[in-house]
Amino acid sequence: MDAAALWQRYQDWLYYDEGLGFYLDVSRMRFDDAFVEALQPKFDRAFADMAALEEGAIANPDENRMVGHYWLRDPDLAPTPEIKQDIIQTVEKIEDFTKKVLSGNIHPPQASRFTDIISIGIGGSALGPQFVAEALSPDFPPLAIHFIDNTDPAGIDRILTRLRNRLASTLVIVISKSGGTPEPRNGMIEVKKAYAGHNLDFSKYAIAITSEGSNLDNLAKSENWLATFPMYDWVGGRTSELSAVGLLPAALQGIDIWAMLAGAKVMDTLTRVHDVKNNPAAMLALSWYFAGNGRGEKDMVVLPYKDSLLLFSRYLQQLVMESLGKEKDLDGKTVYQGIAVYGNKGSTDQHAYVQQLREGVANFFMTFIEVLEDRQGASPEVEPGVTCGDYLSGLLQGTRLALYENHRDSITVTIPQVNPRTVGALIALYERAVGLYGFLVNVNAYHQPGVEAGKKAAAVILDLQRQVCQVLANESKPLSLTQLAEKVGASDRIEAIYKIVRHLYANGRSVKLQGNLGDLNSLQISAL
Amino acid sequence: MDAAALWQRYQDWLYYDEGLGFYLDVSRMRFDDAFVEALQPKFDRAFADMAALEEGAIANPDENRMVGHYWLRDPDLAPTPEIKQDIIQTVEKIEDFTKKVLSGNIHPPQASRFTDIISIGIGGSALGPQFVAEALSPDFPPLAIHFIDNTDPAGIDRILTRLRNRLASTLVIVISKSGGTPEPRNGMIEVKKAYAGHNLDFSKYAIAITSEGSNLDNLAKSENWLATFPMYDWVGGRTSELSAVGLLPAALQGIDIWAMLAGAKVMDTLTRVHDVKNNPAAMLALSWYFAGNGRGEKDMVVLPYKDSLLLFSRYLQQLVMESLGKEKDLDGKTVYQGIAVYGNKGSTDQHAYVQQLREGVANFFMTFIEVLEDRQGASPEVEPGVTCGDYLSGLLQGTRLALYENHRDSITVTIPQVNPRTVGALIALYERAVGLYGFLVNVNAYHQPGVEAGKKAAAVILDLQRQVCQVLANESKPLSLTQLAEKVGASDRIEAIYKIVRHLYANGRSVKLQGNLGDLNSLQISAL
Repeated sequence: MDAAALWQRYQDWLYYDEGLGFYLDVSRMRFDDAFVEALQPKFDRAFADMAALEEGAIANPDENRMVGHYWLRDPDLAPTPEIKQDIIQTVEKIEDFTKKVLSGNIHPPQASRFTDIISIGIGGSALGPQFVAEALSPDFPPLAIHFIDNTDPAGIDRILTRLRNRLASTLVIVISKSGGTPEPRNGMIEVKKAYAGHNLDFSKYAIAITSEGSNLDNLAKSENWLATFPMYDWVGGRTSELSAVGLLPAALQGIDIWAMLAGAKVMDTLTRVHDVKNNPAAMLALSWYFAGNGRGEKDMVVLPYKDSLLLFSRYLQQLVMESLGKEKDLDGKTVYQGIAVYGNKGSTDQHAYVQQLREGVANFFMTFIEVLEDRQGASPEVEPGVTCGDYLSGLLQGTRLALYENHRDSITVTIPQVNPRTVGALIALYERAVGLYGFLVNVNAYHQPGVEAGKKAAAVILDLQRQVCQVLANESKPLSLTQLAEKVGASDRIEAIYKIVRHLYANGRSVKLQGNLGDLNSLQISAL
Repeated sequence: MDAAALWQRYQDWLYYDEGLGFYLDVSRMRFDDAFVEALQPKFDRAFADMAALEEGAIANPDENRMVGHYWLRDPDLAPTPEIKQDIIQTVEKIEDFTKKVLSGNIHPPQASRFTDIISIGIGGSALGPQFVAEALSPDFPPLAIHFIDNTDPAGIDRILTRLRNRLASTLVIVISKSGGTPEPRNGMIEVKKAYAGHNLDFSKYAIAITSEGSNLDNLAKSENWLATFPMYDWVGGRTSELSAVGLLPAALQGIDIWAMLAGAKVMDTLTRVHDVKNNPAAMLALSWYFAGNGRGEKDMVVLPYKDSLLLFSRYLQQLVMESLGKEKDLDGKTVYQGIAVYGNKGSTDQHAYVQQLREGVANFFMTFIEVLEDRQGASPEVEPGVTCGDYLSGLLQGTRLALYENHRDSITVTIPQVNPRTVGALIALYERAVGLYGFLVNVNAYHQPGVEAGKKAAAVILDLQRQVCQVLANESKPLSLTQLAEKVGASDRIEAIYKIVRHLYANGRSVKLQGNLGDLNSLQISAL
C-alpha cells in the first residue's frame, strides 16, 4: 500500500471521541473490506446478544447467572429496582466510609489515623486494584496500599515485616466472594495472627468485601468488623474493578472513583453502537479476530508507553485469557479458544524483547497505548527543541512503523492523559471488546471452569499429605517411597507422595528423610 | 503412559545437584529417546561451540566481539591476564566502595549516610538489578533502590517527587555502556536538573557504570563523580547482571554478591558437561527445542511459585527473546527465530490466565519454579496439619498434573530457597540454556540488530519534528496537514507529521491546532 493510500486508510479507520479525547487506530491491522463484510453477520448476532446481556439475560449459562458489570456505572440499566438501589447505595457507602477514615472519624484504637492498607485478595480481587493503584495513586496517598495476592508464606512475611511499625494503623481489606478461596483465606488467617501477635484487635482493623451470607460475611458480622461491602453474583472477578472490590481501595488512596465510573459509563455508551466502524470495542474485537483467525493464533502484546500503566497488560492478561481461554464453545464443541496476552511498557521493552517482535517469530500482534500528555507542567529540553517525552513519542512511532514494515500488525489506543476518567474508560473498552469477541467465537466469556478444577487438584494433594503424615505417625520403621505409597493406598501416586515428603522435610516438619536425595529409590522416610 | 512408567521416566530424567540443592525435572515434556538421539549431533556441535566461546573465540561475529560473561564468576577462565585482573579488581572495588558507603565513610555533603539509590538504566541495565532487588533485597535494606528505566517524564517525576525529602541523601547510578542510549541519557539529564533545583551538587551523588572512554565515562571523570565502574565490550546487556551493572546495586542493598557469583560459578561448571542428560542447561535447551520444533512454535510460560521471584519471567523475557529472536541465522538464511516468554507468579496466576493454559489454545509450554523452603521459621496451621505453604506446594503440583493430563507439557525447576547463591545459579542456568539453544538453531544469540533499528527509526521522527517546528516558525498563516507536509518536503509522511503535531499540541508546545480534532482534513496548524 503506498503512502497516500495508507494515509487514507488511517483516516478512514481512525476512531475519535471528543468527550474522552480518545483515539483508536486499527489501520495497521491488514484486514480488507471483504473481511469486515464477511464478519458482519457474526457482529449482528454479537450486538444483539450483548444487548440481551445488558438487559439481564442469563449470559453465563453454566453458572446460571446474569452478567451485570455494565450496570455498576449506569445503575439505571439494572434489571430490577433492588439491584439499582444496591449499586447506588454501595458507592455512597464507600464514599461515606472513606470520608470517615480520611478525616480520622473512623480511626484505629491506638492512633488518630489509618496510614496503610493491606489488601488480601487474588485474581480479580487483586489485579484491578493493583493496576489502578499503580496508574492513579497520588505520589503521597492518604493511605498506602500493600497487596497479599498469594498463599506464599515468605511473601506474607515480607509485607508484615515491612509494616511492623505501622501495623497499629493499618487497615486490612479481605476480598473474597465466597470466603472459601484458599489463598485469601490463608492470607487472612496469617494476618489475623500477626495482629494478635502485636496485641491488636483484628476486628478493629478489618473490612470484608464479600457476597452476602458467605462464610467471610458471617465471620465479619460475628466479629463485628469495621465494615463490610458487597460482591454481587452478577459481577465476575475479572470485571469487578468498578464494584466495591476496586472502588473502595481506590477511594481510600484518594482516587476519584466518580470519575472512574463516569469514564467507564461514557465508554459503555460508545461501545453500545451497533456499527463496527463506529464502535471502538467492536473495532478491537474485529482486529483480534483478524489477527488470530478467530482462533487465537497470534499473541496480543500490549505496550503502554507510560510507566504508570505498567500493570495494564497484566490486568488484561486475566480479563482476556480467563474470559476467552475455553475448551468448549457454547454449543459444547471442543474449540480450545483464547488469546495469549503479555507486555510491560514502552519504550523499556524495546530494550528487552522487542528485538524478537521486530525480527523474530511473527506469532503476535501489538497494541500500543499512547498517552498524549507527557507530564504535568513543562519539560526541560534534553537537546535543542526536544524533550524526554518527544523521545517516548518518537520511539513509539518508530517502533510501530518498523513493525509494520516487517509485516507485524498493530493497534494504537491513544488517551489524553492517565487519569481516573481515562482509566475507567480503558477498563470499559476492554471489558466490552472481550464480551463481543466472546460472542464472535461463541464461548461463555463469564465462567472459569479450569480455575475450579485447579483448586480441586490441589485439595487432592493436601488430602494425600494428611494421609502420608498419618501413615508415618503410625509407623515404627522407616519406609521407602514405594512402601509408603502402598500403605497410603496410592501406589500410582508415588511421585506426588515424594514431593509432599520432600516439601515437608525441607521445612523441618513431620518427616525425616535418609538416603541419597538424588536417588529416590534410596530414600527412607519416617516421622520426626 | 501408565503411572509406573511415568514414575520411572521422572526418576530417569530427574537432575539433582547436591551442592546447590537444585533439581530439574523435564519428565513432563513428551519427547522420546529417538528425539534425544536425533538431536545429539546438534548438541555435539553446540557443546564444542560453547567451549570455544568460553575460551575467547569471537562468538558474536556481527559485532566482532568475544562473549565473556562466564569469566565474571571464574576469572581464571578469562583469555588474558589483563581481563582476569580487571574482573577481580572490579569486584574488589565494588566491595570496597560499598563498605565505605555503608559505613558512612563516603557520605553525601549534607548528611552522614546515603539512604536511597536512583538507578538509571534500561534493558539489561535495569531488568537484572530489578529482578535481584525484588528477589534478594532485605526487608530493611541499608539503601533503598528506585529505578528510572524509561524516558517517560511522568515516570521520572513520580520517582523524584516521592524522593524529594531524601534527595540530599540519594545516590544516583547511571548505567549505559556507550552513554549515548537516549533513555538513560535523558533520565540523567532530568535527574541532574532536579538535583540542581534542590541546590545539590550532582557530582557528589553520581556514579557511572559505563565502558572506558565512553561519553558517560568522560563526563563522569571531567565532573569528578563519586566513582565509575566498568562495562566490558565482551559482556552483553542481558548477561550483565553479574558484572558491575548488577553487583554494585546488589552490594549497596546489602546482598551477598560473592554468594551470587559462587552460585553462578557452580552452575557454570554443571552446565559445561558434554552430556545432555547430565547438564541441566542442555536439558532445558532440549525441552525448548522439542516444545517448539526448534522454531519457537510454543510460548514459554514461566511461573515461579514464590512472590520474591515475580520478576524472573520478565528478566527471562529479555534474556531469551532478545538473544533468540532473530531474522537471520548465522548462515544468513531468513529464519524468524525466537521463543516468546511471559509469566508472573503462582499460585496468583492460577486465578488469572491459567484458565486459558489449562483449557484454551495450546500454544505454550510451562516452566514451574518451585522453592522448597516456605519461609524462615515455622508456619502456623491454617487448618489441621496444613500450612499456607502446603497450599502453595499443592497448587503447584495440582496445576502441573492438570496441565499434563490436558496434554500441556511442563518443566519444573526446584531450588531449596531464594538466596544469593540460588539466584546466581538460576541466572547462570538460563544464560547457558539460551547460549546452547542459540547454537542448536544456529543464530547469533549475542547481538540485537533490531534494537539499533528502533533507535534509528525514532531519530528520524525527531528530525521530522525539528523540521516541522522550523517550518511552522517561519509561516505566518495556518497550514493544513497536507500543506505542512509539503513544506517539510515529506508528503509521504503526513501521518507521522500529524502525530508530531498532535503530541506537541497536547503538551502546550510550539503549535496551535484549529479545526475538528476528529477530522484530520479540517485541521489548521500554526506556531504558538
